[in-house]
Amino acid sequence: MEKVNLAEKFSRFEEHWRPKIVGEVNDVHVKLVKLQGEFMWHQHEEEDELFLVIKGRLQIKLRDGDLWLEPGELAVIPRGVEHCPVAEEEAHVLLLEPKSTVNTGNLTNERTSAAEWI
Amino acid sequence: MEKVNLAEKFSRFEEHWRPKIVGEVNDVHVKLVKLQGEFMWHQHEEEDELFLVIKGRLQIKLRDGDLWLEPGELAVIPRGVEHCPVAEEEAHVLLLEPKSTVNTGNLTNERTSAAEWI
Repeated sequence: MEKVNLAEKFSRFEEHWRPKIVGEVNDVHVKLVKLQGEFMWHQHEEEDELFLVIKGRLQIKLRDGDLWLEPGELAVIPRGVEHCPVAEEEAHVLLLEPKSTVNTGNLTNERTSAAEWI
Repeated sequence: MEKVNLAEKFSRFEEHWRPKIVGEVNDVHVKLVKLQGEFMWHQHEEEDELFLVIKGRLQIKLRDGDLWLEPGELAVIPRGVEHCPVAEEEAHVLLLEPKSTVNTGNLTNERTSAAEWI
């Protein structure tokens, strides 16, 4: 059994918006992602999604007001809630999502990315 | 929808070994716990458990070698694996566990604690 050092894992990739899997807990994947710029409005029909900011600052746009997350802050976006992540400068984020979750939720397009283990 | 600031949540309680719930993601609870001293050997028959150290240093004793976790490091203890958490000095830890998880796993004793939301 090995531990996971988040900073070391983040050092292994550069690309944005493509989550990497670093652990699994029952039916949930622990993923790391680097974000920069604006993603797209989407929702996950069946899955809640947790964002924990490790570095930088994350804006999660919501239809009824935005959340701003700093390092050490988390938010859970419940299933069915439209959201749009934005990071003006690069942010490092830990995600918790069911293994079934696709990054673009109800959309499939050029930003859809199957997560791989690192 | 509100964000969770981990430091603020940790400031709301002092006791050790009694996890508090701060979020839920599908069937998983996000819990915060303060640890100090040695817990007990136990296992969770059906549930994996994630430990992410936020502050301090956590030793997780295992039958085949120990893990030492610093802030920014996590480990997943798979179901059925005996473990014993130890923190020589107070450690602040984020846990991910299925909602069904009891802190003392297969044991029920004076340290068994039902988690409450904070």
